[in-house]
Amino acid sequence: MISIAAEQDGRLIQSITSVFTTEEVDCVAELWDEYCQQGAQVSGYYFVVEREDERVRGFACYGPRSLTVGTYDLFWIAVDSECRRAGVGRLLLDWVEEDIHRMGGRLIVVETSGLEKYAPTRRFYLATGYLLEATLKDFYKDGDDLVIFTKHL
Amino acid sequence: MISIAAEQDGRLIQSITSVFTTEEVDCVAELWDEYCQQGAQVSGYYFVVEREDERVRGFACYGPRSLTVGTYDLFWIAVDSECRRAGVGRLLLDWVEEDIHRMGGRLIVVETSGLEKYAPTRRFYLATGYLLEATLKDFYKDGDDLVIFTKHL
Repeated sequence: MISIAAEQDGRLIQSITSVFTTEEVDCVAELWDEYCQQGAQVSGYYFVVEREDERVRGFACYGPRSLTVGTYDLFWIAVDSECRRAGVGRLLLDWVEEDIHRMGGRLIVVETSGLEKYAPTRRFYLATGYLLEATLKDFYKDGDDLVIFTKHL
Repeated sequence: MISIAAEQDGRLIQSITSVFTTEEVDCVAELWDEYCQQGAQVSGYYFVVEREDERVRGFACYGPRSLTVGTYDLFWIAVDSECRRAGVGRLLLDWVEEDIHRMGGRLIVVETSGLEKYAPTRRFYLATGYLLEATLKDFYKDGDDLVIFTKHL
């Protein structure tokens, strides 16, 4: 079941970031702090969690891109490694797309890495109707490309 | 002559933004305030101005992209409309590229608009060795695409 993330979910959310680097974990923490302190609308960061009973199985973070009318960044969808292939990512993505649409969003942009460990992530977006728009070589660091996907709602 | 922007240049910089929309002017102002309050290194926004005698003819703003090693955004190069074709943009770009290289930058990313009024901007980047990486349709708003250029240093 998806719900808007509450402050007490913070610790659980930050335990799911197993695929992330230290810098990415810090970045999630930074966005999370702004979300908790200012709320989604002011911070521009929306967090939702997928929960089975009391267990948080995954989360998503998204928000409007500044200087645009109706374009949203989907910053992260992360699913606990023990809950892969259970459709949690898909549940989260469906929620995110509906919520963005409800807020007047027209376009979703996803930026991810070209590293081999993100191949399942890239397949996930291709399988859910996202368009591979660009690959910026060596963007994150040497050998780690930026891959940009979009979906028009 | 190029120099690092000082607090008293703020008013001049903000008078150059004639091609920008209100939202873009606000965004320049926001970055400028952070730069003045925190300095370039902490804010992550570097401002330089090109000056002839006392007159500021143009400015540039750039900074490191978070989560990357050595990738820099070139946020803006703006030249006073009365000083076009005087090579001011080129002077600023050369400085910016050298400064980014000096700081260990490997890759510069430029995001601009696909609107007709930005056609000279796009020609400028193509003429200075930038690669057109992607065009994200209707990114800024309906009919206003995002165009991404890169240059590997």
